[in-house]
Amino acid sequence: MGVTSDRVEYVCRYGGNGTTTSGVNVSIAAEVTMEIHSVCLPPKESTFQKLKHRLSEIFFPDDPLYRFKDQTWCKKLVLGLQFLFPILQWGSHYDLNLFKSDVVSGLTIASLAIPQGISYAQLANLPPIIGLYSSFVPPLMYSLLGSSRHLAVGPVSIASLVMGTMLSEKVSPVQHPTLYLKLAFTATFFAGLFQASLGFLRLGLVIDFLSKATLVGFMAGAAIIVSLQQLKGLLGIVHFTTKMQLIPVLTSVFHHTKESMKKPKLFWISAAAPLTSVILSTLLVFLIKSKVHGISIIGHLQKGLNPTSTNMLYFNGQYLALAIKTGIVTGILSLTEGIAVGRTFASLKNYQVDGNKEMMAIGLMNMASSCTSCYVTTGSFSRSAVNYNAGAQTAVSNIVLAGTVLVTLLFLMPLFYYTPNVILAAIIITAVIGLIDYKAAYKLWKVDKLDFLACICSFFGVLFISVPLGLGIAVGVSVVKILLHVTRPNTLVLGNIPATQIYQSLNRYKEASRVPSFLILAIESPIYFANSTYLQERLLRWVQEEEERIKANHESTLKCIIIDMTSVTAIDTSGIDMVCELKKMLEKRSLVLVLVNPVGSVMEKMHRSNFLGTNSLFLTVGEAVADISASWKPQP
Amino acid sequence: MGVTSDRVEYVCRYGGNGTTTSGVNVSIAAEVTMEIHSVCLPPKESTFQKLKHRLSEIFFPDDPLYRFKDQTWCKKLVLGLQFLFPILQWGSHYDLNLFKSDVVSGLTIASLAIPQGISYAQLANLPPIIGLYSSFVPPLMYSLLGSSRHLAVGPVSIASLVMGTMLSEKVSPVQHPTLYLKLAFTATFFAGLFQASLGFLRLGLVIDFLSKATLVGFMAGAAIIVSLQQLKGLLGIVHFTTKMQLIPVLTSVFHHTKESMKKPKLFWISAAAPLTSVILSTLLVFLIKSKVHGISIIGHLQKGLNPTSTNMLYFNGQYLALAIKTGIVTGILSLTEGIAVGRTFASLKNYQVDGNKEMMAIGLMNMASSCTSCYVTTGSFSRSAVNYNAGAQTAVSNIVLAGTVLVTLLFLMPLFYYTPNVILAAIIITAVIGLIDYKAAYKLWKVDKLDFLACICSFFGVLFISVPLGLGIAVGVSVVKILLHVTRPNTLVLGNIPATQIYQSLNRYKEASRVPSFLILAIESPIYFANSTYLQERLLRWVQEEEERIKANHESTLKCIIIDMTSVTAIDTSGIDMVCELKKMLEKRSLVLVLVNPVGSVMEKMHRSNFLGTNSLFLTVGEAVADISASWKPQP
Repeated sequence: MGVTSDRVEYVCRYGGNGTTTSGVNVSIAAEVTMEIHSVCLPPKESTFQKLKHRLSEIFFPDDPLYRFKDQTWCKKLVLGLQFLFPILQWGSHYDLNLFKSDVVSGLTIASLAIPQGISYAQLANLPPIIGLYSSFVPPLMYSLLGSSRHLAVGPVSIASLVMGTMLSEKVSPVQHPTLYLKLAFTATFFAGLFQASLGFLRLGLVIDFLSKATLVGFMAGAAIIVSLQQLKGLLGIVHFTTKMQLIPVLTSVFHHTKESMKKPKLFWISAAAPLTSVILSTLLVFLIKSKVHGISIIGHLQKGLNPTSTNMLYFNGQYLALAIKTGIVTGILSLTEGIAVGRTFASLKNYQVDGNKEMMAIGLMNMASSCTSCYVTTGSFSRSAVNYNAGAQTAVSNIVLAGTVLVTLLFLMPLFYYTPNVILAAIIITAVIGLIDYKAAYKLWKVDKLDFLACICSFFGVLFISVPLGLGIAVGVSVVKILLHVTRPNTLVLGNIPATQIYQSLNRYKEASRVPSFLILAIESPIYFANSTYLQERLLRWVQEEEERIKANHESTLKCIIIDMTSVTAIDTSGIDMVCELKKMLEKRSLVLVLVNPVGSVMEKMHRSNFLGTNSLFLTVGEAVADISASWKPQP
Repeated sequence: MGVTSDRVEYVCRYGGNGTTTSGVNVSIAAEVTMEIHSVCLPPKESTFQKLKHRLSEIFFPDDPLYRFKDQTWCKKLVLGLQFLFPILQWGSHYDLNLFKSDVVSGLTIASLAIPQGISYAQLANLPPIIGLYSSFVPPLMYSLLGSSRHLAVGPVSIASLVMGTMLSEKVSPVQHPTLYLKLAFTATFFAGLFQASLGFLRLGLVIDFLSKATLVGFMAGAAIIVSLQQLKGLLGIVHFTTKMQLIPVLTSVFHHTKESMKKPKLFWISAAAPLTSVILSTLLVFLIKSKVHGISIIGHLQKGLNPTSTNMLYFNGQYLALAIKTGIVTGILSLTEGIAVGRTFASLKNYQVDGNKEMMAIGLMNMASSCTSCYVTTGSFSRSAVNYNAGAQTAVSNIVLAGTVLVTLLFLMPLFYYTPNVILAAIIITAVIGLIDYKAAYKLWKVDKLDFLACICSFFGVLFISVPLGLGIAVGVSVVKILLHVTRPNTLVLGNIPATQIYQSLNRYKEASRVPSFLILAIESPIYFANSTYLQERLLRWVQEEEERIKANHESTLKCIIIDMTSVTAIDTSGIDMVCELKKMLEKRSLVLVLVNPVGSVMEKMHRSNFLGTNSLFLTVGEAVADISASWKPQP
């Protein structure tokens, strides 16, 4: 209160009019003694304090050091280790019941992860075995570092597709398989580095700029590209084999997966469908192999664990830029998916997932995986949903998944010899068709046309231009949307709702009525350089229109302009200059300008630029009207 | 009112507590019958109407067709012509008195424009005579097309400097003078085309993104570059001539110009100084030419009017991109200066300058000028100020200026033969030093640190990187500032100011107090994809902190969270999803979520996404608190 400019406090008579509205008798005492409240400055802070406060809100909105407060050094160390390795936190009270649930869910997601891993590797133009390798090391790493209990980690369709598209534009995976593999591992390394850096620098806000609208469009566009690619292969094969046997398998796969998204109780159908299809089709091919030729099959897969791939990382040469670019794009996309999935299931079970910590976990996981022949992995939406529905309790389900993949890698590889590639294409198409969320797009159209525009831009950008450019355009549209809202903000004329102190938009509230001699305006946006010129012109136009209306209706002349600043959440120097100039221009027309309820930061800036005059600031519109009308009445 | 979801209207008892604050006795009737007001939807509009409304606010905020409403066709034609050629508007009632004022001011600015024209042409690495040509045709064009009465048109320092810097980076004006000249004219043509297109497409909002902060930094950086360049030449010359004679001239020039900015009454000193310096120094050189050798002089200037330069325009070849880029950068800078100057003096004399019309006028002027051997021109701030102070009344002062330049071009060219280049350097330095507005920079620092940052970025960017990149960085910083405000918005805890219905920040208003069992929060920003995750976490953190505080103080348990949406000026689909999710999460903790006073567009979107439940919307915080507390009391 010490810095308050000058506290205006006096009492004026204000008569309520006691009208009857909507059949309810409103009996406000006809003469209420009314206090005029002063507008306070926010508590004084030094520039350093303000900077600290601002930076902590930007980078540490979740106050991560909160738990370390008032603890002993020893306890702090334990808490720090638990922060880095969340397994230490829940590991101590892990019991057999939890383990039983985790084994069931782990085996369930493994039955989904193995065929999907092989298929997604194919989507990224990588050998099928890389998909299995990527379903072994990353889940193990995540179970140590990650804070989500339900995330099922492994290759995902979007990141696989983007990596496949971006790399194969420059390097052919058929002509230069080793170079292509090197680039894939290098891109994975950079994806991890980028993700971990974002987390370490607490720049989690970057992924907030990929809005849901953008992702809906992006995924639909990507799904169509992938489906067309796979369909080409699929139709080529169909030509050789007997149609009748393939269609039922395909339809059943489609049917089951689609169903299970709606009815979580049937999740095991969707979970079992891919593995069942793989087993059935492999058996089928094995049985008919002597009769039908030309069916493309996976062929020989090498038994054994992930070989190290540190020697495959590629830190100089002409394709380094490509690897970095691919890494950043796949990194940000897989991060967005991983964090969104983690947060979704955390909110269902009411626990917190720390975004920046998750970024570091996923980033470190990808960096480590790139050295063990894995490509980009993250938390998959479909597998995490299955994991959750199968009753997963902790990250141990990821360890069980890794164990199952380990057994597969060591002993079961020959079984995949006759698996037809066509079934992998079917699995991919099934997975990506589910990404086309036309209902979400329709909802966007219904609720927010500009969001729909961002969605459409993202869709066509990805479909017809390229993945990074399409994403870039969509993010650009989203940002322009924010800027447009600031550049051309809404201004309203307010009126009084009879017998209350409420002032609301005349256009919206039919019961609101103008206060004679006053024009009450509200600005619905911060006042910035980008809109100060517009706002000045717009406000003057309101004044002019009001004066013309008054002239036409022969009402009492306009004397005072009140601007309700409640929604003006920030102001900059251009904005303050604009308000000063507006005040001067109105004074030339013998009009008084009064501001109502500026928020803390706006008040502070106006105070510092010495704009504040006496009697031009009020806390509520009602008080401003009452006080100014009283000052016009001849003193008794 | 037809679309209101369900109008909640019932009466509840609400007891005021009648405390005494600040020594003023507040006597609110202890039992006031209170009406609960419903929240209305805005009037229904079709998508097309909304789009029309939105586009008209974006592109036609000044409602330019307003004057054509309810007019006959003949009158509309006259008004249309007057709109295109404002001279038709004031030309009919032009009289001798106005003409007298215009002649005086026209001659005054001519005495400033001729030496400045020659100097600025040198700044752009162009022959001095181009500066004179550019002070002849553009003022004539502007007097026909322009709507400002005080703008003095001609070459300006910023545009000259930028053109000189950008072109000479690629093409040497010494080695390839003709190519350089061609590029300058071509850049001027594209500058004009760009400006006219912006005006025609009503994209005036583009120049709003060059904030004052950016320009302060930019001009200071540019001024330093120019001064260093010119000083190099200046010191080279000083070596040959006698120091003692130069210094007084320089000091007097500096002194006078600086003084006149502060005291408009002495404007003629500043106006006369450059011409006086030129005359005196020319005389001096003429007198000492036999004694001292090596003084660089202007030399022979060709008599005669502007030659046509249509054959010099350059529409293909390797430098076309350079010319276009230079044209766009100089075009946008000169436009910003011209419009800002025009608006400043228009507001002093209380008339309107139509931004988009001005862009078209300046653009057409530059396109036409590029065909008559002129380079980029616009309204100069210093000369317009002199023009205004000398009593200019209409654009006729520009015609007088052009006439004076015409006489100079036809008859007085030989007089400039002995004018030393050093005096031109002095004029340039004097002009640009005035652009370093350290006071404005200090004010930026004092009022808004982020504006100061944009200013500093622009300053160092221009000084150490390059003109377009420096400007780009500064605009980027300004945009990031807007985005940052949206990404990490302010959230407040509100409390009741006793004996009122006012709810204000607890942190700012010490008299405000918490309402038991309620947590009242306010969000000071639109809710977008870019901040929905942050806001959800932040709001939950407020709830958690409140619950801990209540536990520590043994207060009554928290039952209801009220969010004051007054300052939430927009919402998108991610924002709506966030609010829905928040509601669900709070319900799990047995907390009720209530929204207060959503603005029109937010209300509409929530309605369309079927978010609205009954009893979760109120018009004011006071009514929400009263109604919800009443519902908790046992019914009698």
